[in-house]
Amino acid sequence: MLEKEQWKGFKGRIWKEEVNTRDFIQQNYKPYDGDASFLAEPTEATNKLWGKLQELQKEERAKGGVLDMETHIVSGLTAYGAGYIDESMKDLEAVVGLQTDKPLKRAFMPYGGIKMAEQACETYGYTPDPQLHKIFTEYHKTHNQGVFDVYTPEIRKARRNKVITGLPDTYGRGRIVGDYRRVALYGIDFLMEEKLKDFNNCGSGSMKEDIIRKREEIAEQYKALAGMKKMAEAYGFDISQPAKDAKEAVQWLYFGYLAAIKTQNGAAMSVGRVSTFLDIYIQRDLDNGTITEELAQELIDHFVMKCRMVKFARIPSYNQLFSGDPVWATLEVAGLGTDGRSMVTKNDFRFLHTLENMGPSPEPNLTVLYTAALPKPFKDYAAKISVDTSSIQYENDDVMRPVWGDDYSICCCVSATQTGKEMQFFGARANLAKCLLYAINGGIDEKSKDQVAPKYRPITSEYLDYDEVMEAYDQMMEWLADIYVNTLNLIQYMHDKYYYEAAEMALIDTEVRRTFATGIAGFSHVVDSISAIKYAKVKTIRDEDGLVIDYETEGDFPRYGNDDDRADDIAVWLLGTFLTKLKKHHTYRDSEPTTSILTITSNVVYGKATGALPDGRKAGEPLAPGGNPSYGAEQNGLLASLNSVAKLPYEWALDGISNTQTINPDALGHNEEEQVNNLVQVLDGYFTQGAHHLNVNVFGKEKLYDAMEHPEKEEYANFTIRVSGYAVKFIDLTREQQLDVIARTCHDHM
Amino acid sequence: MLEKEQWKGFKGRIWKEEVNTRDFIQQNYKPYDGDASFLAEPTEATNKLWGKLQELQKEERAKGGVLDMETHIVSGLTAYGAGYIDESMKDLEAVVGLQTDKPLKRAFMPYGGIKMAEQACETYGYTPDPQLHKIFTEYHKTHNQGVFDVYTPEIRKARRNKVITGLPDTYGRGRIVGDYRRVALYGIDFLMEEKLKDFNNCGSGSMKEDIIRKREEIAEQYKALAGMKKMAEAYGFDISQPAKDAKEAVQWLYFGYLAAIKTQNGAAMSVGRVSTFLDIYIQRDLDNGTITEELAQELIDHFVMKCRMVKFARIPSYNQLFSGDPVWATLEVAGLGTDGRSMVTKNDFRFLHTLENMGPSPEPNLTVLYTAALPKPFKDYAAKISVDTSSIQYENDDVMRPVWGDDYSICCCVSATQTGKEMQFFGARANLAKCLLYAINGGIDEKSKDQVAPKYRPITSEYLDYDEVMEAYDQMMEWLADIYVNTLNLIQYMHDKYYYEAAEMALIDTEVRRTFATGIAGFSHVVDSISAIKYAKVKTIRDEDGLVIDYETEGDFPRYGNDDDRADDIAVWLLGTFLTKLKKHHTYRDSEPTTSILTITSNVVYGKATGALPDGRKAGEPLAPGGNPSYGAEQNGLLASLNSVAKLPYEWALDGISNTQTINPDALGHNEEEQVNNLVQVLDGYFTQGAHHLNVNVFGKEKLYDAMEHPEKEEYANFTIRVSGYAVKFIDLTREQQLDVIARTCHDHM
Repeated sequence: MLEKEQWKGFKGRIWKEEVNTRDFIQQNYKPYDGDASFLAEPTEATNKLWGKLQELQKEERAKGGVLDMETHIVSGLTAYGAGYIDESMKDLEAVVGLQTDKPLKRAFMPYGGIKMAEQACETYGYTPDPQLHKIFTEYHKTHNQGVFDVYTPEIRKARRNKVITGLPDTYGRGRIVGDYRRVALYGIDFLMEEKLKDFNNCGSGSMKEDIIRKREEIAEQYKALAGMKKMAEAYGFDISQPAKDAKEAVQWLYFGYLAAIKTQNGAAMSVGRVSTFLDIYIQRDLDNGTITEELAQELIDHFVMKCRMVKFARIPSYNQLFSGDPVWATLEVAGLGTDGRSMVTKNDFRFLHTLENMGPSPEPNLTVLYTAALPKPFKDYAAKISVDTSSIQYENDDVMRPVWGDDYSICCCVSATQTGKEMQFFGARANLAKCLLYAINGGIDEKSKDQVAPKYRPITSEYLDYDEVMEAYDQMMEWLADIYVNTLNLIQYMHDKYYYEAAEMALIDTEVRRTFATGIAGFSHVVDSISAIKYAKVKTIRDEDGLVIDYETEGDFPRYGNDDDRADDIAVWLLGTFLTKLKKHHTYRDSEPTTSILTITSNVVYGKATGALPDGRKAGEPLAPGGNPSYGAEQNGLLASLNSVAKLPYEWALDGISNTQTINPDALGHNEEEQVNNLVQVLDGYFTQGAHHLNVNVFGKEKLYDAMEHPEKEEYANFTIRVSGYAVKFIDLTREQQLDVIARTCHDHM
Repeated sequence: MLEKEQWKGFKGRIWKEEVNTRDFIQQNYKPYDGDASFLAEPTEATNKLWGKLQELQKEERAKGGVLDMETHIVSGLTAYGAGYIDESMKDLEAVVGLQTDKPLKRAFMPYGGIKMAEQACETYGYTPDPQLHKIFTEYHKTHNQGVFDVYTPEIRKARRNKVITGLPDTYGRGRIVGDYRRVALYGIDFLMEEKLKDFNNCGSGSMKEDIIRKREEIAEQYKALAGMKKMAEAYGFDISQPAKDAKEAVQWLYFGYLAAIKTQNGAAMSVGRVSTFLDIYIQRDLDNGTITEELAQELIDHFVMKCRMVKFARIPSYNQLFSGDPVWATLEVAGLGTDGRSMVTKNDFRFLHTLENMGPSPEPNLTVLYTAALPKPFKDYAAKISVDTSSIQYENDDVMRPVWGDDYSICCCVSATQTGKEMQFFGARANLAKCLLYAINGGIDEKSKDQVAPKYRPITSEYLDYDEVMEAYDQMMEWLADIYVNTLNLIQYMHDKYYYEAAEMALIDTEVRRTFATGIAGFSHVVDSISAIKYAKVKTIRDEDGLVIDYETEGDFPRYGNDDDRADDIAVWLLGTFLTKLKKHHTYRDSEPTTSILTITSNVVYGKATGALPDGRKAGEPLAPGGNPSYGAEQNGLLASLNSVAKLPYEWALDGISNTQTINPDALGHNEEEQVNNLVQVLDGYFTQGAHHLNVNVFGKEKLYDAMEHPEKEEYANFTIRVSGYAVKFIDLTREQQLDVIARTCHDHM
């Protein structure tokens, strides 16, 4: 059993025998069921640094969204020396480390695709070094090139027509959460020793390809760990040994995360479940009297400030999918242990408190692992933060804990992965709404007129017959599931080959469990369209080629979002059916197929590419985001809407079901206390039914209109809203997306 | 069916329906059973160019073996513009194209390993661009790095102790012969169309890893074909269409080969079986009267001159293995068709005649596919060339044709692969002699004292017991076969991953057959040692640790190389047993395991690493090369020696059995006619017994001594000898290797 002086006062044994952060947490954390009154105000250092950062953010916005970009240096663990928010205030930074040499400067990351890296520079008026073009074109192949080398004409067509869409073939797949806590708990040297053991125990000598690949991956992880030590050395820290106090623990952990964001530009770069872990260090220091609550809060504030600074160079088509420059630095608080104890600590308060100390912010993507069993004072505080800032999201710990245990992290918006034990192959979305139109039109795309899917028999009748449509749809989903999974198979293969996440995987167990995340777009519209075909009369409107391009629906029909089983049953059927079809296929590295109902802000671009639907949605209009009911479909208030979404079995959408709701403050109550109480009741009720996720926005449409028209007002500089799966500064959205947000249902009654 | 104006006068159909060079040859070649009297002298252009090249070769030798090296440009299809032997004589070159911009200048090829590429430069006083170090260390991983990342400690130890040795982990594996004739016959555009078809037909949509990899490989091949067109454009040629005459055919074919040697620096870079193919074009032009025999010979002379110029930058440890700067530009003549017709054409004479027109030369590695059924005048001419130049080798078409058909090429020294239909994973050698010592010493290396193999029970008796040794040896060979095959599995995986031979594979069928070539070193010594243990009394001499370090053998015992079945049966048993053990294992990409008895000049370094053996060979002495009997073992003349080797079944060593013999001219006859006749008789007799290969040297030892002492003499400038599997200029060997050659048996009687 390993013993380290830095562990003085820590209990437990298993985590000393093997790398096991969860065991360390369970043995050492101290649940806190008090209220928020202990929290401290920001220190002077925090105010100064945050003030400086806000200036930089303003400058960034003034420059069109990008402050500075690298054009010569290829990002890597040791590509830069030390960098600070402000050289003259560097001693104020309790947590140091930048992605590049300057704050908010975006790194050059070509491994995902040199074309994208160059395009990102050029979009903002920067000219990348032509030598880099030569290197990453002639000498080193990139992920993007690998994928496009292998695509079939069929895949290219399906992709171009956006029936499979948002694919991580022009950007890093992300969604891998290293267990950054390990750096603090064990120090790099022990982690390297353990990886070396794994290397030596990898395979029994028979060099089959899976063993060779795995051995090479461990070797790359080992090198990445060595690189992290060097990276930290540039800042004057030796992270070879465990962190000896709270300050080092936060710093060591952040270095782990910094390694990830220096080497990967995945869509989602989550921080993970770090709050309870760090509380153990802070509590020890508080108990020892070596730290005050003010300094504890400063540590968390500064760490959070660093998470607010994460930036990547993106291309315009990426920004269309994921609007507002998000990075999904997702960070969880709360939840229960499998032993039933609340995992809420003072630190969970501190993390939420950063939204007060430094104002609202989209990043880190603060996520409350919710259950009605959480201590009341914490629930109240979280609800208060929601009412005040609309910056946090809630996910149901009661449905996730049985599947992922009590040490999972959210790797993007709503997708859980066991921290340090699991990775995910992110796979974006299949547009099931377009798939329905393909079923009706015999595989011809309603916008491009391309024969995208096979030439199955089209529907030729004037009025849609439910049985006929359902048979055709079943067949078409079969095709879609096949081409979708296989497209992802090759994308993941190439990502592993050309853009392997060595630094993140170095902080994950070698025997890693892999999920294969797929996703569904257009969910509510398919449900309502099928309902229309079943319960009303849907007439087809055809163009001169006989292609159905619009629908006239006569009569009423039940819609998803009203707690009406007739519609909601279709929703459950749709999810189950598509998942079953996905699962038929071989998935890369024998990963476990999962699916999500989650579209991020891409519901707007997905909608643009989708023709009119039998549910009455017009061609080109945005789709409803994620698992949300369609705009205008909800007629029976917030609770009925929540009840509909809650019926979707989480077990069939283990990658998450995103639901975003906006509540008018007046609908919640006449004063903050009432609003907080009511919001807690809503959350308790919703999650007790087994629902998975809720983005809570508390504001009225008037504020949105005003912010859209007057983005320059000081009060809107940090005005943050929750969109599908993440938070965003409202003024950073495009006008089109702002209008979409405004179009969404804002509940003015419960 | 495709029709091309360039094909006017060519017969047949299948080769127009699909890429099928063999069918084209069989339909169109004209066997020649006449004598050499038609051959033409070198043209003035040939003399001038060859004169210039000899000057350069002299200069190269004066500069320590390397004339010039690239230090900035990474080799590639289009890395350079046009280059000529002599800018002022470029119009004289009937066949153009250099590896770099200058003759004999060695390219910078980092993909196999940046360290090796740099070391090669530094060895000869050149300093490679440090930017290249950064690129191929930080950005792009090389084959060598991949392999060493994955090696186990056990493999490293076995490799360091040289029980597995000469592994292609620090150099390109080579041995892949593109069907360069396809460029001439079809032109690049058609080949690209066919590869595109293959791409579109690759896999049924299910993207399993083998399909993804294959699709990517086809994509790389397609790009390589496009690159070849660009490369040829730099010389003013459009190779998109088929060659229209003999001159273009030779030029197009050479561009195909040039693409290979610009992108790969494999140990063996064979040209392949091109002679009969090119004769069809030459014969058509001769028949049309558009060419004379002089010009026909000039084409072949200039093509051969280009093959004589192929150079790679090598490191010292490579030169130890493969002495004298060989490239194995192996090129075959003769053989029979499966229909029984001789494939000897006038062109086969022309190729051999280059050794007269331009003097002896090690390259191209001219190989006669021999059978007693070849036309007598051709056999006589080949024998005459052997007697005069010692520059050619003979391989038994009668044993290879049933296995590989009538269009195989020799991809190195003795290894056949079907041209355009097959590739080989080259895998160097296992030292079976060391393995025997490991069996005796319980897995401890007799030189380093390392425990290399498992701690099996050592032999502890003073006198070796045959049964006990055989049981231990069987167990140790089991271990060796396992670690050897698995080492090769990972080497081949990394070579595919980091140094894929796109240009060569582009000229091979997409549905390629793969062999997994292993090899045996120390063969004759194991045979004789086992014979000694069985038939004589072998006493062990132990050091202070009890390790056997020497042997005293009392009494006589039969030795391999004397046509004595008692020894020769052991040889057959040894080959069959080791092959069976190799075949037990999974081989990369389900390739077919084969083995060879072939050591190249590495018998010297292998011997250095091998302790004393029971057959009387002292520690550190060279092993006998390839399948040769041990030096001094042959007591019954050339024919008895050949008879012993001929007993080894070719079916068990499909990668070839190399045999190198030196005959004193006087032993062959008193005049050239007698010598030629006798040599033909020797060859007929040897190959009719089913023997596989013979390197024929005709000279006495006096000449070798004199050349060693007086390398400056003009007559030795091109003095070429056959060593195990290739030819070499004697003066280019190290003194150590010269002494080894001198030590070999020189038969002075039949």
